Amino acid sequence: MEFNKISANILEAIVAVVGESYVLTSHESLEKYSHDETEDLVYYPEVVARPQTPEEVSALLKICNENLIPVTPRGAGTGLSGGALPVRGGLLITMERFNKVLEIDEQNLQATVEPGVVTEEFMNEVAAKGLLYPVDPASKGSCFIGGNVSHGSGGPRVVKYGTIREYVLNLQVVLTSGEIIWTGANTLKYASGYNLTQLMIGSEGTLGIVTKIVVKLIPAPTLDALMLASFPTNEAACAAVSAIFRAGIIPSALEFMERKGVEWVKQHDDIAFDLQDAIEAFLLIEVDGTNQDVIFTDCEKINAVLEEFDCRDVLFADSAAQKEELWRLRRTMAVSVKSNSVYKEEDTVVPRAALPQLIKGIKETGAKYGFESVCYGHAGDGNLHVNIIKANMSDSDWNNKLKFGIREIFELTVSLGGTLSGEHGIGLVQKDFMPIKYSDVHFALWKGIKQVFDPKGILNPGKIFS
Amino acid sequence: MEFNKISANILEAIVAVVGESYVLTSHESLEKYSHDETEDLVYYPEVVARPQTPEEVSALLKICNENLIPVTPRGAGTGLSGGALPVRGGLLITMERFNKVLEIDEQNLQATVEPGVVTEEFMNEVAAKGLLYPVDPASKGSCFIGGNVSHGSGGPRVVKYGTIREYVLNLQVVLTSGEIIWTGANTLKYASGYNLTQLMIGSEGTLGIVTKIVVKLIPAPTLDALMLASFPTNEAACAAVSAIFRAGIIPSALEFMERKGVEWVKQHDDIAFDLQDAIEAFLLIEVDGTNQDVIFTDCEKINAVLEEFDCRDVLFADSAAQKEELWRLRRTMAVSVKSNSVYKEEDTVVPRAALPQLIKGIKETGAKYGFESVCYGHAGDGNLHVNIIKANMSDSDWNNKLKFGIREIFELTVSLGGTLSGEHGIGLVQKDFMPIKYSDVHFALWKGIKQVFDPKGILNPGKIFS
Repeated sequence: MEFNKISANILEAIVAVVGESYVLTSHESLEKYSHDETEDLVYYPEVVARPQTPEEVSALLKICNENLIPVTPRGAGTGLSGGALPVRGGLLITMERFNKVLEIDEQNLQATVEPGVVTEEFMNEVAAKGLLYPVDPASKGSCFIGGNVSHGSGGPRVVKYGTIREYVLNLQVVLTSGEIIWTGANTLKYASGYNLTQLMIGSEGTLGIVTKIVVKLIPAPTLDALMLASFPTNEAACAAVSAIFRAGIIPSALEFMERKGVEWVKQHDDIAFDLQDAIEAFLLIEVDGTNQDVIFTDCEKINAVLEEFDCRDVLFADSAAQKEELWRLRRTMAVSVKSNSVYKEEDTVVPRAALPQLIKGIKETGAKYGFESVCYGHAGDGNLHVNIIKANMSDSDWNNKLKFGIREIFELTVSLGGTLSGEHGIGLVQKDFMPIKYSDVHFALWKGIKQVFDPKGILNPGKIFS
Repeated sequence: MEFNKISANILEAIVAVVGESYVLTSHESLEKYSHDETEDLVYYPEVVARPQTPEEVSALLKICNENLIPVTPRGAGTGLSGGALPVRGGLLITMERFNKVLEIDEQNLQATVEPGVVTEEFMNEVAAKGLLYPVDPASKGSCFIGGNVSHGSGGPRVVKYGTIREYVLNLQVVLTSGEIIWTGANTLKYASGYNLTQLMIGSEGTLGIVTKIVVKLIPAPTLDALMLASFPTNEAACAAVSAIFRAGIIPSALEFMERKGVEWVKQHDDIAFDLQDAIEAFLLIEVDGTNQDVIFTDCEKINAVLEEFDCRDVLFADSAAQKEELWRLRRTMAVSVKSNSVYKEEDTVVPRAALPQLIKGIKETGAKYGFESVCYGHAGDGNLHVNIIKANMSDSDWNNKLKFGIREIFELTVSLGGTLSGEHGIGLVQKDFMPIKYSDVHFALWKGIKQVFDPKGILNPGKIFS
């Protein structure tokens, strides 16, 4: 696709839409928008606009559509697949001024929220009313709910409560034509034409720009229990995962952590945690509900399962503070691991019983290609984040050889019935691996859909597929 | 769209694919396929084919695509919006020989099933392993799971467990080109390109023909309680619905039934049930779980809520037989009501707190246009089925005037934040009402998507939109 540069005239039109104080052009002010949390990648936009209303977004898209200017929508910039990187320059539209919770409807247990609201802030507002919005990615303290929609985000509680896909009821979307539509209705069920809401979720800003989000809320559980189980091998920990469900329990979180991840958190964050020798892996398991007996019984059942899988020790958190400490261990792992080295993060997902084979294969591939990896993630969903660490790998190997190792990991993932990403999206950095899983027929359908929504291809070009 | 008729040559090609004994052409043998459960509508196909494999479906679609023959896919024919009616003649492909549960994977809590399996039979196979597949439309004893996918079906337990949309992980689909694809992966999460699985769900056989379905299973609850609450007015019953959720309870079913529906079931089915005077409406409320104390506490809380809404009596089912009897009352209502008269069924859905306004408006519209209606449905989801009964209405009014009344009902539904169908689909009979809710922009997007999947428009023409 041949795009145009933003000329002085076009810049003037952009300024006329949002006002001068909401347009950034200096190299210094653009720096923040030139990267997200994806590796060490940097791409500068030509101009950043900070609109506040759907009408402003509409006017911006019309200008860019008419003038063939590439547009990159951006949430909080916490993405791990490069979805918010303006790889073709052009206009970056940041949604940071769409930062209001518009309504929490306690009659219908629904909320209407703008895409630039920080996920955790929204969760807290909802919780203050005794309600639960359970989609809490590890980055919940900084990510935007709009970015969560764009990636079909999950988080630790997906295992019981489902991904954001199960909570979004309706979306206000601005199309590249400038039209503003609602994708569906504010209802719990929908059988009224092709489901555009579900199509938008996970489309990574390539089909339209989301400007309002209606989500379902549920009554909040009032009690929970948290335990940390330690295992002598990764495989033993992973094998225990599917057995817990087979015992009839659906935990509210079931997270896997490799020893090295815990070591690095301890270095980075000074978390008090006694890391025993001969322990290679952990499962962090939460059970929630409204009745202490039920939670206690569930914990006992889980304990019985864990013992069958060579579990060495189970630590029950005995206070809110200890729970918070254990969750912090898991939540800061990504940042801690990444602060140690240049990294690449892959987001593998398989049917959960295949986890032991997956982690074994990842380590074997690492040994073969000479890279170190730290794995952690939402084991209850079969979703393992693989952080590949540059450490002492040569620049040449890192740049040239590593990609073949990553390819092998994805080939294994696919051979186990899985796919390339469970919740991080494909964005820029995974798209070359998509043909491992998907055929030309898939690409033709996807590109056809893209063409329907964005005939000129201005919206987030270079993402998901080329 | 100009279609061709099935010539002798084309018929020969069809026979060559599936074998002579699986091709029907006589008027008598086609009769069964000329109608579904939608009103009294009848459309004959030219030919019916009964393939057994995806490859046969592929070959049939190739023949029809090359020769511009319209194709209508058909499940069990229990649809209520005319989705399976071959309105343009052509080839009807019945999925009745895709009738095998291919795998119940107890390690991953997943199952792979063919689309022609009767929903209840699948549920029972799953239940025999202590697992739950909870998507149970009222027609579960006769409908196919493939039809459920095509309509995004729900049922009484959606309120706690979600629609089929939350259980389908992956679909094998045959496209009109004859290509056979899997839409996604057998994983609980998916962020790897536009979600074709979710797009297929609810597409009513217009984008491709589903030949295998992978669904998520969950551990089965072991206990439940069922209560029937009676109210002096429809509005009081409907008003109680949203209050139950606000009290922190998510029942496993929350069904509304109008008095007249109960009367007609009693006439039709000889169900033992003492119908008191001055009772206009009922809520059938189920709570399930694994702990008797929790269920008991939930029932007490619900009871307290009901008392605030002028509930006159609460009957607790005290045996499995009584539970079965109360469920039979609800499940046979559609058939009982319809056996009394020619009917039209509308499938309104609104945010649940709007139910009292919806039912009040429906009755006012009926009074204005002179039609009788019987309402029942999944009140916990805000989903009300409106059965409009011809009774003594003149043929002229039924054929000419009624549609304006139905339009008013849908206009009210939309004004309350709802949409035309929650689970029955748009099919043939609701498509003229779609512009009440959806703009030209929606239609252009839908038609664009249709064009991507089915460029010649052979697949289930005349459904959802014209």
